[in-house]
Amino acid sequence: MILARVEGALVATRKHDRMTGKKLLLVRPLTVDQPNAENFKESNSTLVAVDQLGAGEGQVVLVVQGSSARLGMTDKDSPVDAVVIGIVDTVDMGKRLLYKSQ
Amino acid sequence: MILARVEGALVATRKHDRMTGKKLLLVRPLTVDQPNAENFKESNSTLVAVDQLGAGEGQVVLVVQGSSARLGMTDKDSPVDAVVIGIVDTVDMGKRLLYKSQ
Amino acid sequence: MILARVEGALVATRKHDRMTGKKLLLVRPLTVDQPNAENFKESNSTLVAVDQLGAGEGQVVLVVQGSSARLGMTDKDSPVDAVVIGIVDTVDMGKRLLYKSQ
Amino acid sequence: MILARVEGALVATRKHDRMTGKKLLLVRPLTVDQPNAENFKESNSTLVAVDQLGAGEGQVVLVVQGSSARLGMTDKDSPVDAVVIGIVDTVDMGKRLLYKSQ
Amino acid sequence: MILARVEGALVATRKHDRMTGKKLLLVRPLTVDQPNAENFKESNSTLVAVDQLGAGEGQVVLVVQGSSARLGMTDKDSPVDAVVIGIVDTVDMGKRLLYKSQ
Repeated sequence: MILARVEGALVATRKHDRMTGKKLLLVRPLTVDQPNAENFKESNSTLVAVDQLGAGEGQVVLVVQGSSARLGMTDKDSPVDAVVIGIVDTVDMGKRLLYKSQ
Repeated sequence: MILARVEGALVATRKHDRMTGKKLLLVRPLTVDQPNAENFKESNSTLVAVDQLGAGEGQVVLVVQGSSARLGMTDKDSPVDAVVIGIVDTVDMGKRLLYKSQ
Repeated sequence: MILARVEGALVATRKHDRMTGKKLLLVRPLTVDQPNAENFKESNSTLVAVDQLGAGEGQVVLVVQGSSARLGMTDKDSPVDAVVIGIVDTVDMGKRLLYKSQ
Repeated sequence: MILARVEGALVATRKHDRMTGKKLLLVRPLTVDQPNAENFKESNSTLVAVDQLGAGEGQVVLVVQGSSARLGMTDKDSPVDAVVIGIVDTVDMGKRLLYKSQ
Repeated sequence: MILARVEGALVATRKHDRMTGKKLLLVRPLTVDQPNAENFKESNSTLVAVDQLGAGEGQVVLVVQGSSARLGMTDKDSPVDAVVIGIVDTVDMGKRLLYKSQ
């Protein structure tokens, strides 16, 4: 899974039937570039993930990708490859707190 | 899923039986390179996706990849790994409109 | 799917039983690096794909990857992750012909 | 599979039901950049993996990714794409010991 | 599939039950960086693959990745994503021999 920040949302009127009613977020992957980093490193690219947890802009989320993403959906036959499966509260690097949600 | 712009199309006469009649598009991935970007960043590479929604050249589409792509097809046993599942109308970054289809 | 050019072939005598009789090609991915490019951009790496269509050296082929590759095989339980599913005749970028097989 | 070092952990209170009780680790991929290297090369990014083996901070683990990750879980319908399936004792490069756990 | 050279091996005592008895190799991906190259280009990273064919250090092997890797195993429910399915004898680039095992 990857960590990512919610930055945007998209709308598509013409779409596959099973995508109807699904909330599509634009998220930016976040990593930790070295063990003693004090903040996330933001990716310079984005991907689209479905959200069923009510994630909001600016929140850090956990995203599952690939075929496993379908198991994160209520409808397991959805043609999706990235789904939000958690809204992150804290990330600890050993005893040091790297991130805490507000 | 990824966003991508439709740029071309390809024809293959000799192909796997289950690919008969399928429309093959050449698409260029689009991402947002930083939170305050005003336009998409275009990838410097392309991939091939099947289209069943009637996407046209220049349109921004939503593409699902991997095994989930097959669930976006009418024929779920198609040997495909990238399928257009939406034609994008708008992309919002928070309250700011990044993209609107014409 | 990706486009790729057939450049070589490999032989492996000791192999998994289900790989017996399968033709293994070395292919080089091809992309289009910008919308007005006049030729493919060749990748500086290669991958191995199974061919069941009789693709020959120098031809541009369509390759499906991942679990969907197995659906491109006659034997769907083959341990393969890249299969040629088309031999490309033409690639058009809008009204402009980028590639035509000879 | 990849090798990775355990560096952190994360907590997500709001999450998919099947993620309840799962331990989520932040791990950093490790590779060997050339045959005669004397240490691992640390990736400058991280990913999130589920742990069921009791891996601790600083340990080198074996991580399986993609749909196969689910087979590493007790609950095979978990929406996960990266799971720790081993805690590494030694890595040998031919006759030379590259890594030994403490 | 990818080509890779066997460079090392690893041992993990604490591991998932289904990994018991499996031989874990550290392999380095090999590609051909341009059509007229005279040797493989070695990747500057490595991955871990299961071997059931008896591949030895220095040999060039064919590795299948992703869910298809499981089909290369005797135990198809193994949580693995990379498996050796061939030991390569020769790689030809057209009429030119790029590699021949010794």
